[in-house]
Amino acid sequence: MSTTEGANYKVIGTRPIRHDGTDKVLGRAVYGGDVRLPGMLYGQVLRSPHAHARIRSIDVSKAVALPGVRAVTTAGDFPSTADKRMDLGEGVVSLKYLRDNILASDKVVYKGQAVAGVAAVDLHIAEEALALIQVDYEVLSPVVEVRQAMREGAPLLHETVTTKELGEDTGRKSNIASHLRHTLGDLAAGFASAAVVVEREFSTATVHQGYIEPHNATATWSQDGQLTIWTSTQGAFTARDQVAAVLDHPVSKIKVVPQEIGGGFGGKIPVYLEPVAALLSRKTGHPVKLIMTRPDVFQSTGPTPGSYIRVKMGVDQGGRLVAAEAYMAFEAGGFPGAEIGAGAMCVFACYYIPNAQVDVYDVVVNKPKSAPYRAPCAPQAAFAVEIVMDELAEKLGMDPLDFRLKNAAREGTRRVDGVVFPRIGCVETLEAIKNHPNYRIPLEPNQGRGVAIGYWFNIGFKSSVSASVNEDGTVNLVEGSTDIGGTRTSIAMQFAEVLGLAAEDINPSVVDTNSVGYTDVTGGSRVTYATGWAAYEAAQDVKAQMIVRAAKLWEVPADQVEFSEGVFFHKSDSSKRLNFKELAAKLDQTGGPVVGSATVKPNTGVGGAFAANIVDVEVDPETGKVQVLRFTVAQDAGKAIHPAYVEGQMQGGSVQGIGWALNEEYFYTERGEMANSSYLDYRIPTALDLPMIDTVIVEVPNPGHPFGVRGVGEAPIVPPMAAIANAIYGATGVRLTELPMRPDRVVAALQAQAAG
Amino acid sequence: MSTTEGANYKVIGTRPIRHDGTDKVLGRAVYGGDVRLPGMLYGQVLRSPHAHARIRSIDVSKAVALPGVRAVTTAGDFPSTADKRMDLGEGVVSLKYLRDNILASDKVVYKGQAVAGVAAVDLHIAEEALALIQVDYEVLSPVVEVRQAMREGAPLLHETVTTKELGEDTGRKSNIASHLRHTLGDLAAGFASAAVVVEREFSTATVHQGYIEPHNATATWSQDGQLTIWTSTQGAFTARDQVAAVLDHPVSKIKVVPQEIGGGFGGKIPVYLEPVAALLSRKTGHPVKLIMTRPDVFQSTGPTPGSYIRVKMGVDQGGRLVAAEAYMAFEAGGFPGAEIGAGAMCVFACYYIPNAQVDVYDVVVNKPKSAPYRAPCAPQAAFAVEIVMDELAEKLGMDPLDFRLKNAAREGTRRVDGVVFPRIGCVETLEAIKNHPNYRIPLEPNQGRGVAIGYWFNIGFKSSVSASVNEDGTVNLVEGSTDIGGTRTSIAMQFAEVLGLAAEDINPSVVDTNSVGYTDVTGGSRVTYATGWAAYEAAQDVKAQMIVRAAKLWEVPADQVEFSEGVFFHKSDSSKRLNFKELAAKLDQTGGPVVGSATVKPNTGVGGAFAANIVDVEVDPETGKVQVLRFTVAQDAGKAIHPAYVEGQMQGGSVQGIGWALNEEYFYTERGEMANSSYLDYRIPTALDLPMIDTVIVEVPNPGHPFGVRGVGEAPIVPPMAAIANAIYGATGVRLTELPMRPDRVVAALQAQAAG
Repeated sequence: MSTTEGANYKVIGTRPIRHDGTDKVLGRAVYGGDVRLPGMLYGQVLRSPHAHARIRSIDVSKAVALPGVRAVTTAGDFPSTADKRMDLGEGVVSLKYLRDNILASDKVVYKGQAVAGVAAVDLHIAEEALALIQVDYEVLSPVVEVRQAMREGAPLLHETVTTKELGEDTGRKSNIASHLRHTLGDLAAGFASAAVVVEREFSTATVHQGYIEPHNATATWSQDGQLTIWTSTQGAFTARDQVAAVLDHPVSKIKVVPQEIGGGFGGKIPVYLEPVAALLSRKTGHPVKLIMTRPDVFQSTGPTPGSYIRVKMGVDQGGRLVAAEAYMAFEAGGFPGAEIGAGAMCVFACYYIPNAQVDVYDVVVNKPKSAPYRAPCAPQAAFAVEIVMDELAEKLGMDPLDFRLKNAAREGTRRVDGVVFPRIGCVETLEAIKNHPNYRIPLEPNQGRGVAIGYWFNIGFKSSVSASVNEDGTVNLVEGSTDIGGTRTSIAMQFAEVLGLAAEDINPSVVDTNSVGYTDVTGGSRVTYATGWAAYEAAQDVKAQMIVRAAKLWEVPADQVEFSEGVFFHKSDSSKRLNFKELAAKLDQTGGPVVGSATVKPNTGVGGAFAANIVDVEVDPETGKVQVLRFTVAQDAGKAIHPAYVEGQMQGGSVQGIGWALNEEYFYTERGEMANSSYLDYRIPTALDLPMIDTVIVEVPNPGHPFGVRGVGEAPIVPPMAAIANAIYGATGVRLTELPMRPDRVVAALQAQAAG
Repeated sequence: MSTTEGANYKVIGTRPIRHDGTDKVLGRAVYGGDVRLPGMLYGQVLRSPHAHARIRSIDVSKAVALPGVRAVTTAGDFPSTADKRMDLGEGVVSLKYLRDNILASDKVVYKGQAVAGVAAVDLHIAEEALALIQVDYEVLSPVVEVRQAMREGAPLLHETVTTKELGEDTGRKSNIASHLRHTLGDLAAGFASAAVVVEREFSTATVHQGYIEPHNATATWSQDGQLTIWTSTQGAFTARDQVAAVLDHPVSKIKVVPQEIGGGFGGKIPVYLEPVAALLSRKTGHPVKLIMTRPDVFQSTGPTPGSYIRVKMGVDQGGRLVAAEAYMAFEAGGFPGAEIGAGAMCVFACYYIPNAQVDVYDVVVNKPKSAPYRAPCAPQAAFAVEIVMDELAEKLGMDPLDFRLKNAAREGTRRVDGVVFPRIGCVETLEAIKNHPNYRIPLEPNQGRGVAIGYWFNIGFKSSVSASVNEDGTVNLVEGSTDIGGTRTSIAMQFAEVLGLAAEDINPSVVDTNSVGYTDVTGGSRVTYATGWAAYEAAQDVKAQMIVRAAKLWEVPADQVEFSEGVFFHKSDSSKRLNFKELAAKLDQTGGPVVGSATVKPNTGVGGAFAANIVDVEVDPETGKVQVLRFTVAQDAGKAIHPAYVEGQMQGGSVQGIGWALNEEYFYTERGEMANSSYLDYRIPTALDLPMIDTVIVEVPNPGHPFGVRGVGEAPIVPPMAAIANAIYGATGVRLTELPMRPDRVVAALQAQAAG
């Protein structure tokens, strides 16, 4: 189901088969695990058994001596570059922390942190060698929960972490790496004017991105310093730049060849194995391949930050929000860098609130360094705010959607972080679910209905596209964006639309970092927006060149030739007409091949997206099991280039949200060890757990994109946890404020309610 | 040694280490033989044991039934496209002949012609299966020599070959596929005015290009029709277009991924295994890999045409050439298409001859279909003409170089094919060898000195280049030209020169057909010329974009910014200056990445090249063995971009010429079977056979190229055979007119001389 606005497109808005579909369905697509090179060695990584320990020494001599072992590498093999802070496209990071997260130097700060890499002639020898590496640890007490980590006297993870308090370095050693605040209006006056105020506290679990394909990297370091890396990554250029920084090696000497990717969700932006494979290749002179096990993925790669959040909101008599305050502390994991800024931007973004304040903290704990996960830090914030909103509506006696609509953000609304919204689709998205028949289905006993809305701002960044016209009028399109969700096709469609071609006429390739202009990560819901825009511009470039060719062919000035509806024609001589394919066949006689290219870096124009849910659940009062009966998601895509892939993103994000809501979490032992690092024990939703996810694409075109695209990948994971919590409340009358809302927590809450 | 003219370049004319050098020296470069894909099958090709036979039937049932065999393919698997004539970049060819040369349908016309392909789980099973394919042949008499093939009543290779006589189809069935004639002036009057006339006849052997790496192809045909081919080829796009034609499959569904190439010399332009691998992959659903054996390469891939040539030339009293006539018949091999036009263009090109005629014939014989080999058909022609020139000089009592200089072609000279030379370096090349000290070294008994000159016109065709600026000011350069002789570097240097960068700042990649604009074959000495030109234009594009960025940075109009000597600067504010790397570091803040691209198709401007030799030999009068003592080659490179690679081409071409002159030939049995299809029996020169080849680069810049490049790959193979023949004459007093000038022929000639 889709609400369509705007221009009458030929290709955009249709649902062609994805270009890479057959190869992926038939198992022919080449993933990182498929890479095999002549003379290749196999690597394994030794990982810390402790959540927190000082490394006194590492003795690799016995491992090196094992027959079949070709090299062992440790942090000592990194060049002796002074520590520095650098921006690698995902926020400023410290080089030392970046390196320590790849191979620990002086400390380990989470169980599973890499300590050494081994390359051997086969995987079994490499594994055997791990046991021969002797690491002398001084074991320290761990701290794995954000509030405990913030306390005075908590075990200190880093001597070098000092709290950055509202932008100023306090010099105070602490696990709080930074504290950020946004203020709007007069908070005290706002709350003073409130008729109803609700304040609640919440906690959310550490959850993993849960991609099926484990991290992998194969590297070959030639004696002339040329380093080639094959890897599954969300951003080949970002991987290149991280490896360049970690190894202090020029970007022009590094080629990253992106392989097909089996899911990322933000977790395949950081590099883990790539530099280790590179160091081992440099030492051995052979290509070296590394693949993580599933426990490695859980214990050593970025989950989303767990959080503690307190939200206080006030409304006036008329049901208008007058004040809101949020305190949010996020678990960065072993090194600073939870995306707290994003959380602060999103927390109150769905509403017009004249007086507001957000305090947000980046806190290190002895867990794996967190990584971006689909709208990072926004789902945690929405979980808190949307439950409070539900309670406010109830106290006001208003329908929860009417209450939200009354306060909904619109064009011109100023967010707490100071940004003033351009044209957005918050109201339209809320109306879409309000008008959905699923909002009116009668409920049975023990069933409840919840709604919620969430926001994600999306990003622009840099993208490049080149396009070469074939003599049959098809076009080879080259781009640098890892295709996770069908973006080869959504980019190709935008190119095709400009030139009156079919999606199938475009032959898109995702190429290595040497073969296309700089292109940022597949993340931030940016690819269809920004790389699609680059494709639009490259098509304009091709069109302009083709006009010159037509003019040459007809021996008329180029300004006498126009292009419309797929046809090049002479303005005043109707006999002179050629469609794109006819003209393509004549390129050879008019000067040779036509190649177009474009780069974009949209600084403004990125359009934020809103997603809203209606969820119906049934709660078993005896077991506490929550069954999702119906799940509806409406989302403003701006313009849905390929509606099926937009729906896929909406469904995928919703399902992950259901996982966060009901099942997923890292269980930690007292010693800070993850106790459930397998898919048997870490439960992501399966098809049996889920209803069909109903989707409604709302289209409020983004004025900052040629086709109105906003970006769709992240917003749908933001509201589900709150919507499910609100539905559980509807079914049971108890409000759960801790994620996940496991059966035992439901039962406990019901028992507490019964106990009165 | 080099004679330098022209501009004062910073990069052009230097000798940086080639970008792919380390990987090639260390065995890390990936060749076609290194390709391994998951689930890959191995193929073998059944080849005709007969030089000439009709195929009555092919029964593959037993082979298909062999366990481990996955598919067998024959010509019956080609689509039933009607025959047509098509231009695939190397002259017009018939689709039927193109296909029959890949998999024979109704006839085999040479021993080794492919008849069927097998794919199996391993190579040995595939080989075993070949013996189970039952082909019912009706064996016919073969004809393997051009004059015999031209005779009335000779065995007829093709019912469909009818002689094209001076452009008109005679309808006469014959082995003569075509006859071409060029005439200039009044031949009879010219000869009537001659004081001295010499007429001689010559024959040259069938010789192979002799690349070390055998042909190979790996193909995977996906169920959606996407065909990917990994192969060592001189032209990925040409391979793509041939495969598209043979399989009647759209070019946009075919991706050719060029691998590193172990030599080609023209022989890796035609496709042989690629369509067979594709058909087998389509049948099996698996990737299929095929590699030729050495006998396959000799017996089934294109050698150069053997020839019979008659040349008559006349001079007046003053030593001026007044008339010349050539009759040249070339062995096309089993299918028409020897490059007779090229031979006709080159035969008399070194001289101003007012009255001339050339008759040239394309003749089919029962040998493998000939393929281009370094200046195709020009060496044979020069062998004849330059021996006649030597004899004329002797009869006139003139120094052979003075005689050539007196008659040398210059700017404005009209060739027999009607072309009027632009600025050329014929005189300068002759003068370079005349002034060389090697021309004055005294000789011992049994030693002789010979000189000769040769011409090759070079080609332009189409090339595309894209370039992406890295933030450190290095540039990733993408091109489609197979790098055989160091052209990654010679192209990168031209790009670097424009922007004031070093060769090492450019990071060139040769990419697949989906990832760059159309680019023609590496052949015709065109790559440094045309792809280099495209790189020059792409650098201009980058420069123009960088100027806009500098202007943006300085907040001045773009027309106030200039670029010179590697620096962008404001015309009237000397404080505003940035070199390329400094400005590259600021691209991010001025709009994002910069990508430049360009395509070229030089129709005019291609500059012909002349190469001249001085050769000293010693002839053992008892054994007839000819030892090359000294070998000097001077050649007009136009402008030598990378002098070491120009010298490498000059030396390589000379060595191949020495092989043609003294050792190389296909020996045929009476049944038309090649008797020496291994490198033990087919003798190419080894280091022990050769002196150091002294090189003199002459630089007469080509006005038709931004840096004056002419192209250097082919001209050096043209004169050596004649120069050696003339040297043998100097040593012995006998003129040899048959190639190769084997010891037995030398002895026979000496005995005939002695017999008087």
